[in-house]
Amino acid sequence: MSATIETILARRSVREYTEDPVSKDDINTILECGKWAPSGLNNQPWKFIVIQDEDTIKRLAECTHYSKIVLQAKVLIAVYLDQETMYHHDKDVLAIGASIQNMLLACEDLGLGAVWLGEILKKSEHVNAILEVTDTFELMAVLAIGHPVEKERSSTRRTLEEITFSEKYGEKWIEGN
Amino acid sequence: MSATIETILARRSVREYTEDPVSKDDINTILECGKWAPSGLNNQPWKFIVIQDEDTIKRLAECTHYSKIVLQAKVLIAVYLDQETMYHHDKDVLAIGASIQNMLLACEDLGLGAVWLGEILKKSEHVNAILEVTDTFELMAVLAIGHPVEKERSSTRRTLEEITFSEKYGEKWIEGN
Repeated sequence: MSATIETILARRSVREYTEDPVSKDDINTILECGKWAPSGLNNQPWKFIVIQDEDTIKRLAECTHYSKIVLQAKVLIAVYLDQETMYHHDKDVLAIGASIQNMLLACEDLGLGAVWLGEILKKSEHVNAILEVTDTFELMAVLAIGHPVEKERSSTRRTLEEITFSEKYGEKWIEGN
Repeated sequence: MSATIETILARRSVREYTEDPVSKDDINTILECGKWAPSGLNNQPWKFIVIQDEDTIKRLAECTHYSKIVLQAKVLIAVYLDQETMYHHDKDVLAIGASIQNMLLACEDLGLGAVWLGEILKKSEHVNAILEVTDTFELMAVLAIGHPVEKERSSTRRTLEEITFSEKYGEKWIEGN
């Protein structure tokens, strides 16, 4: 199996981090991967805010049920859709999903652990106030990143046959030949 | 640089394909990567329809300005959001963006070429009729896949400093130390 496919299949959300700092080189690489996602008309609708300041992290931790994860993270990346560069809401949101996935895969490849926080969107207004963002910024996710505490991590997915059709809806995709 | 990061940075949209068929093993691997994307509450809101039938490909080609690309493709994957498994529209659309990106990266890793077609969403109703999908299916994208015609492919992105802020909006992220 090729390395990228292996990374895609092996990646798991990591919610516990060590005290080790994340290097600036690693953060740049993660952002670089995020920005190289495809987007409709190459409009690149994403904006990123990198947060490492402990006080800001503490304030952001108060915006989510997952404060324990946020407080342990060495880096947070707040991912925004910038409505100024937007051309089609759903397509831009898809592109940002692609950008986030690039960043998560980059973390895995760098030996870092990361988790995609979505629940924090319930408190988008608080987050936006803390980060002092402009009106055109719409919060899409916060990524929590750090060096992973070693432990077994597992997850599950539906089978291909449950989610895939062949030629048209209703005709099951059969994996075997 | 690690292999996954290299794939992420090197991947380009491929719009010209050879006559070589895409193997079933490769299609299974692409779908497997698609299904291993993360999603909120692990709800896996995606459904895939794999199209290889020439007649269906011809009919789908009529739904887009990019019919030339579609007609050359050996495989199309129509990617749907299934509103039956949906819990939050934007978060589910983000997850599907992540799933699409996994599939595009898998294609690159397999030596295949692929392009994410979004313009075809203008004719979603036609596509849905051709693929006979159920009412709960919302078309997100069509991926065109084949063996790439060799040629130089380039693209551009904004610099990190143009799209990234440090600690809060307005404070530019500086890549250097």
